[in-house]
Amino acid sequence: MEITIIGLGKMGLSLAKQLNKQGQTINGFDVNPLISDIYSDERLNYLSSINDLKAVQDTKNLVFLLLPAGGPTKATIYELSSLLKKDDVIIDFSNSFYKDSIDNFEALRDLGIKYYDCGLSGGVEGALNGACMMLGGQAETDQALLDLLASLCVPGGFEFYPQPGSGHYLKMVHNGIEYGMMQAIAEGLELLHSQSHYDFDLSRVTNNWRYGSIIESALMDNIHEELSRDEDLAQFNQKVHASGEAKWMVSEALQEEVPTPVISLSLMKRNASLKEVPFSNQVLSAMRFNFGGHKEY
Amino acid sequence: MEITIIGLGKMGLSLAKQLNKQGQTINGFDVNPLISDIYSDERLNYLSSINDLKAVQDTKNLVFLLLPAGGPTKATIYELSSLLKKDDVIIDFSNSFYKDSIDNFEALRDLGIKYYDCGLSGGVEGALNGACMMLGGQAETDQALLDLLASLCVPGGFEFYPQPGSGHYLKMVHNGIEYGMMQAIAEGLELLHSQSHYDFDLSRVTNNWRYGSIIESALMDNIHEELSRDEDLAQFNQKVHASGEAKWMVSEALQEEVPTPVISLSLMKRNASLKEVPFSNQVLSAMRFNFGGHKEY
Repeated sequence: MEITIIGLGKMGLSLAKQLNKQGQTINGFDVNPLISDIYSDERLNYLSSINDLKAVQDTKNLVFLLLPAGGPTKATIYELSSLLKKDDVIIDFSNSFYKDSIDNFEALRDLGIKYYDCGLSGGVEGALNGACMMLGGQAETDQALLDLLASLCVPGGFEFYPQPGSGHYLKMVHNGIEYGMMQAIAEGLELLHSQSHYDFDLSRVTNNWRYGSIIESALMDNIHEELSRDEDLAQFNQKVHASGEAKWMVSEALQEEVPTPVISLSLMKRNASLKEVPFSNQVLSAMRFNFGGHKEY
Repeated sequence: MEITIIGLGKMGLSLAKQLNKQGQTINGFDVNPLISDIYSDERLNYLSSINDLKAVQDTKNLVFLLLPAGGPTKATIYELSSLLKKDDVIIDFSNSFYKDSIDNFEALRDLGIKYYDCGLSGGVEGALNGACMMLGGQAETDQALLDLLASLCVPGGFEFYPQPGSGHYLKMVHNGIEYGMMQAIAEGLELLHSQSHYDFDLSRVTNNWRYGSIIESALMDNIHEELSRDEDLAQFNQKVHASGEAKWMVSEALQEEVPTPVISLSLMKRNASLKEVPFSNQVLSAMRFNFGGHKEY
């Protein structure tokens, strides 16, 4: 089995390093050829083109995709569809919309290429030392493949769901939950930071909550680490971006008529953070001025 | 130091057991005398009345209060104020409003009795085997007391904040964060449970997320355990109660003009769950009927 990682950004390169640490020799490709200056290991063979995969005719190809969701992932899968052969395998680790992954599964199945969608969580640290994976795909799979993926996860962190698209569906919901949990922690810490009664050291408080409390969590560990560096988090500039998954999740919840008010609000709070002057605030001020003469300009 | 636990409910009895396991001989009192039938240990001496504390004149008293917040806690502190002597210590583990705890601190300080407010997290399991504590109180304290409390916590789970009321303030905010995190998890799992595409085993999904994911947390462990027992959670009857802390936290946030929309909404979702027929729904239906002729009755 010839393993090739396509997309050597933060996540892809970290998975490559983990495979190298396991002693696996693999191929890697990135659109940016300078990537080979960042990391070199005799067990990572850089390909100069995806076309090099054509050369592997005797061995089974296993291709990991770690590309931005949408266009780059779709274009690469299209390219791979003419390079790979029957029984070769693609594991798509992108944060793709699950319906795109079902489409990919079906198109590749017709060519005999096995496509799996895999939700990947745990960040760079996880990809490097042990991640959490939600693998979706065809019911019949080979145990060697599952074992390989499980070996890249912390114990218990790998699970296979034998339905195409289910891995990316779960990652989408995972991220929606993440947004809500993060917003709850953020609001609590804002109150502690802004209230007028006590002088709390938020690095100590969040550390206290990391051990034995009901709210202990990877997210609490994570914010504790940043607060320990700077308790005012001054380098963060108030803008909070959202990648696509929570938007998909809220859209899916609307479609399925399942109320997800807190997750929706958490996403909208991020959207609101991106507007310098939200028009809704202008509307409110204009109304206050109009009926009450309140000047807010 | 003579340790007495007042209030031997789930939490108080669990702390008593943990102290006994450490080899500590303590006193215990509960309004319900039948409590001694539930648990007996030669190192737990049941008092038949709080007045028995009077007898301890030579030794320093250390009294743990684990009573319902509000009335029972206030009444007991009032009773103790005439039974305890100078330099005796009360640790109030109730989920009391922090301003009440400041009042208690001040009233008892005038009598020379040391009062500490202690936020206690980690549930029954924590009280039994290692909790998380946020201790608030006077700046000068003795190390032996801090060491004793830390010994009842998991390593790292104990922290002292040298301002009266701060322990209960932190517990209040902790619980607000908890409500928001719980609601986010609940909404994600409702979508997974209700969507029409996949047949997910939520016990497996939540287990998958417990290892290496960004949303791994004590709350995920906790819901995984219940889903493993019954994936439909059928025994839970749709009513979700709220103890007082989140209400205090949202009131405090309003007072301090700090926006906490997700925590507020999480609390209101619980409030809404208690109404069989929310009047707001009746209002909506009545309006739909009035302007559109839509019959919803």
